[in-house]
Amino acid sequence: MSKGKAIVLLSGGLDSTTCAAAAKAAGFAVMALTIDYNQRHRVELNAARRAADAFGAERHVILPLDLSMFGGSSLTDDIDVPKGDGAVDESIIPPTYVPARNTVFLSVALAWAEAVGARDIFIGVNALDYSGYPDCRPDFIRAFEALAAQATKAGVEGDAFRIHTPLLDLDKAGIAKLAHRLDVDIKATWTCYDPVMDGDSALHCGRCDACRLRKKGFVEADLPDPTRYAA
Amino acid sequence: MSKGKAIVLLSGGLDSTTCAAAAKAAGFAVMALTIDYNQRHRVELNAARRAADAFGAERHVILPLDLSMFGGSSLTDDIDVPKGDGAVDESIIPPTYVPARNTVFLSVALAWAEAVGARDIFIGVNALDYSGYPDCRPDFIRAFEALAAQATKAGVEGDAFRIHTPLLDLDKAGIAKLAHRLDVDIKATWTCYDPVMDGDSALHCGRCDACRLRKKGFVEADLPDPTRYAA
Repeated sequence: MSKGKAIVLLSGGLDSTTCAAAAKAAGFAVMALTIDYNQRHRVELNAARRAADAFGAERHVILPLDLSMFGGSSLTDDIDVPKGDGAVDESIIPPTYVPARNTVFLSVALAWAEAVGARDIFIGVNALDYSGYPDCRPDFIRAFEALAAQATKAGVEGDAFRIHTPLLDLDKAGIAKLAHRLDVDIKATWTCYDPVMDGDSALHCGRCDACRLRKKGFVEADLPDPTRYAA
Repeated sequence: MSKGKAIVLLSGGLDSTTCAAAAKAAGFAVMALTIDYNQRHRVELNAARRAADAFGAERHVILPLDLSMFGGSSLTDDIDVPKGDGAVDESIIPPTYVPARNTVFLSVALAWAEAVGARDIFIGVNALDYSGYPDCRPDFIRAFEALAAQATKAGVEGDAFRIHTPLLDLDKAGIAKLAHRLDVDIKATWTCYDPVMDGDSALHCGRCDACRLRKKGFVEADLPDPTRYAA
């Protein structure tokens, strides 16, 4: 039975695509929202399109919102994306942090939700990210729900918005398992911050933090990793 | 003495332009942020440019962010802008409410603030608006400050963001007086939701809620109103 519309933030990565699959599995009609923030890894926009198609999203909006005008992140700026071969240091806020990104994304999702009468918003933040990114922590999600209650016509009328975070307590291995269970087309998802071109097709670099965590997740989950890595 | 940079949300209207003047008078270097949300009253973008010039803004960013893709408001949609000759009913949420607009605007301002190391954000919300718009109320502003403390690297490190609302307790007459005192070029500001073209130049319609409140403000403040109204 349909639970009605939910706005699902969909970047095209493994996390957000699995999050969208969870929203659909929970009975929501998926309204997929992709923010084109002029990220370096623009290939993820195509992954988002494929995922929205695969889920039979009721609507898919790709909203241009050029956060690169502000700078301050290696994802939108000339700062180097960190690379390495060892373990990812999850205790520091990495240079790939985009200032206030999830606040902006959830705000735009809230605007769309209120305009179409939806009260449910899905975002694929998870336990692994939130050690490094302030806007992936449960305290942030709760603060945003509190804001939504004050910020909107629906909210002040007592009709609360819910921010769903089905991946919150999962690490990458848990997400890989969930993706598998929900039949996500894993090889169509895009994770890498710094794609390497191989002719016309983009490969995952295999060495940025995001690639290393993705690799490690499949290894730890003991699942095949269909991703094409350059290294 | 400069207090450093402040992000100032500047639409080009009387309120936000007066708010920017207050930020400058308080000693901040103005970083003006205008959101081009594909509003019907696009003439206000030119007013914002003039205002940013007039204040010697350190930088002025006009960020395209097309909220009209979501609909739900007479400012971005095909819903009629309400018109009338009597008093504006300030007790209801009007159809000119844009879902979660100030949440989106403040989020983008927060992103820019964090990227450039600013901790101060100015927004020209006021007492007159907040009876009708949920996101112009003090409770909303406080909820946003609480969110900013959780949402950002600076915030979680204990370096708080301040949302300044110098117009919060003013009605339109109070804003007109403040604008006058701060030498704002009032006739360069744009308020009308539904401009009327007179050859190449745009006139304020004089009949939408925003125009009626602007008119009434100058009358009550006993100040000359240099605005060119069509009616």
